[in-house]
Amino acid sequence: MTEPFSAVDVIRAKRDGGVLSEAQIDWVIDAYTRGAVAEEQMSALAMAVLLRGLTPDELARWTAAMIASGERLDLSAVSRPTADKHSTGGVGDKITLPLAPLVAACGAAVPQLSGRGLGHTGGTLDKLESIPGWRAAVSNADFIAQLNSVGAVVCAAGDELAPADRKLYALRDVTGTVESIPLIASSIMSKKIAEGSASLVLDVKVGTGAFMKSVDDARALAETMVGLGTAHGVRTVALLTDMSTPLGRTAGNALEVAESVEVLAGGGPSDVVELTLVLAREMLAGAGLDGIDPADALRDGRAMDTWRAMIAAQGGDPLAPLPVAAERHTVVAPASGVLTRLDAYAVGVAAWRLGAGRARKEDPVSAAAGVVMFAKPGDPVRAGEPLLELHADDPARFESALAALDGAVEVGATAPEPTPLVLDRIS
Amino acid sequence: MTEPFSAVDVIRAKRDGGVLSEAQIDWVIDAYTRGAVAEEQMSALAMAVLLRGLTPDELARWTAAMIASGERLDLSAVSRPTADKHSTGGVGDKITLPLAPLVAACGAAVPQLSGRGLGHTGGTLDKLESIPGWRAAVSNADFIAQLNSVGAVVCAAGDELAPADRKLYALRDVTGTVESIPLIASSIMSKKIAEGSASLVLDVKVGTGAFMKSVDDARALAETMVGLGTAHGVRTVALLTDMSTPLGRTAGNALEVAESVEVLAGGGPSDVVELTLVLAREMLAGAGLDGIDPADALRDGRAMDTWRAMIAAQGGDPLAPLPVAAERHTVVAPASGVLTRLDAYAVGVAAWRLGAGRARKEDPVSAAAGVVMFAKPGDPVRAGEPLLELHADDPARFESALAALDGAVEVGATAPEPTPLVLDRIS
Repeated sequence: MTEPFSAVDVIRAKRDGGVLSEAQIDWVIDAYTRGAVAEEQMSALAMAVLLRGLTPDELARWTAAMIASGERLDLSAVSRPTADKHSTGGVGDKITLPLAPLVAACGAAVPQLSGRGLGHTGGTLDKLESIPGWRAAVSNADFIAQLNSVGAVVCAAGDELAPADRKLYALRDVTGTVESIPLIASSIMSKKIAEGSASLVLDVKVGTGAFMKSVDDARALAETMVGLGTAHGVRTVALLTDMSTPLGRTAGNALEVAESVEVLAGGGPSDVVELTLVLAREMLAGAGLDGIDPADALRDGRAMDTWRAMIAAQGGDPLAPLPVAAERHTVVAPASGVLTRLDAYAVGVAAWRLGAGRARKEDPVSAAAGVVMFAKPGDPVRAGEPLLELHADDPARFESALAALDGAVEVGATAPEPTPLVLDRIS
Repeated sequence: MTEPFSAVDVIRAKRDGGVLSEAQIDWVIDAYTRGAVAEEQMSALAMAVLLRGLTPDELARWTAAMIASGERLDLSAVSRPTADKHSTGGVGDKITLPLAPLVAACGAAVPQLSGRGLGHTGGTLDKLESIPGWRAAVSNADFIAQLNSVGAVVCAAGDELAPADRKLYALRDVTGTVESIPLIASSIMSKKIAEGSASLVLDVKVGTGAFMKSVDDARALAETMVGLGTAHGVRTVALLTDMSTPLGRTAGNALEVAESVEVLAGGGPSDVVELTLVLAREMLAGAGLDGIDPADALRDGRAMDTWRAMIAAQGGDPLAPLPVAAERHTVVAPASGVLTRLDAYAVGVAAWRLGAGRARKEDPVSAAAGVVMFAKPGDPVRAGEPLLELHADDPARFESALAALDGAVEVGATAPEPTPLVLDRIS
């Protein structure tokens, strides 16, 4: 087959600051998906895009081409209005676990294709896989059936959804081309749009534990993604939420499942409950179910019922005991006073090094490893009393986890000004 | 084996405009050579280097690491003083062919490892391979022996010489990362320094048919290369020479061999003779043979004798007829007057499309294809009389070659100001 473009010409055009044509973008994404553009060519193009940027028109076409590389799910057989949510990833961010069944319990269908974790932020599938029997793989037919019966599915994306993104995501990870707003936005939105949901809420994290360290960068990413979703007919809103300190009091797979179940039981840490309800209201509004208060469904047990049905539908035993770490190590407060800082990134790296995350996508993760936090910023602490508890399968992991936590904790005389959980809303 | 660095960290450091450490550079070149840094990682790094640059210290270390990736030839068994020359590539640039035997005839040893052509500039080995029987492969032992007996060897570089550059050069070619002064300079100089010559003359081409279109870019490249050579103990000078119009009156493999033989016979086009002599004087000076006038060796036949010995030593028959193209097409002058422009790039692309060059490194080339020029800028022409003659094995090639020549020729009323052949000298 004769190719209509040369990969080198496309790379050079972007490298030199030019604007790619629609035909060039369509071709390069398609040719990369089928292997006619080589990995080393796409990595050079990705670096050129990272350093030169994409115009809004280029980005829209790039995203459309990524969607067109595979199928777009048809959810017309789902009887409920659909609403999905995506988080850009944070430390202790287990919100999907209580949120999906909660929104389903309120009458929407939540079709959530999730990923595994890489680096210091955990993956939703890794967390759910700590539940005995639960499986991430769901066929398209079962996906639709479970959306109609239970109302929520959290599962792995099939190979047919945005395959260009699957290749490109793996490539960017090993070539230092992750940190690009257009590439991040097109990666997220191509998958989410292909997933077929009519509405989408984006939780864009900001802070040390997040991909975006500044509110300005996060807002730029959020605006870009909202624009892409809207252009493809998906009702999309984004919240910028704080990730300077971990969400909740756990970071780790089974630890976060247990904390999520507490929230579904009507308890749980206040920040997790608050963010779950804020996002649930946005999703319900996106689904046209504005009048329903999700707090009721947490209180009266409907969300917990849906959680159990959702876990059971994918082979999991929602009542089985979760894995527990063989080894624990306690970190005590260095002084008495008020905890003024508990750095999200440091806790994320510690949990990762304890075994909760993976360095390479083929690595296994530990279900039980992670970090339990006994205090959060603003809480009083006493010198020598437990502040953190590290969980691992192997005690050899404690040393490097402790090194990650060096400088992550600060104790002061007075409570810090509380940071609002939701920093901005973009629609 | 545990790697001391992560490729992603090195890529990100350069991507973000940082300076790589000596240890990072040593590692990334070595790890790439042995495959621990993947092609797609090196291509992202190459793009980051292209867009962010290398400091002089980074470049020196990068080049040293490329040399250290293989062996550095030991020419201590060569009894004559050694002098080498490298051209950055131009259209009709056959100068190595008369130059190497000429300098050898004057008493120096010329150890020239050459390459094949890619794109619109021809390769010296492609040209010599149009001579029946001639072979480019020479063992190290034969290389030394031929330098002592004949005084000149033009042959293919072995796999053991700067293998990092061989991999990186092939990669850059397909990833749009060729046009970077540090990457070009380190590629050329790592090979030339590893080749073991004590002195080196660089012919840096400037103009439409050259890689460097402006004198400023060419000077920057020349200064960079002279600095690298000097730092590695090689006496290095560079000439900037004009490549706005082709050198001589032929572009093509056998066509250029025939023209070179004319020069060795004491005739040939004046620009080819002039540049050959200028470069020969520089090489002889580098070898400490300043007092010798190479014009004498052209005049009295010693250069031709050395040429014949050099060709015969590598299996070639210097007296055998050269391949002749089956098909010819004449391009006539569009008007009467003085030829004011004959664009080097256009002629190079035409010769390439006629079959003299290759688009991919595995493509074959035609020995006979090319372009013959009956006039050069400054020469009088008459409307309708032959100006160019296209040679090809297949007449289907004429159409695209003629398209390349569209706009390449201008005829005016008065002769243009003659462009000096040598534009600058850097030492």
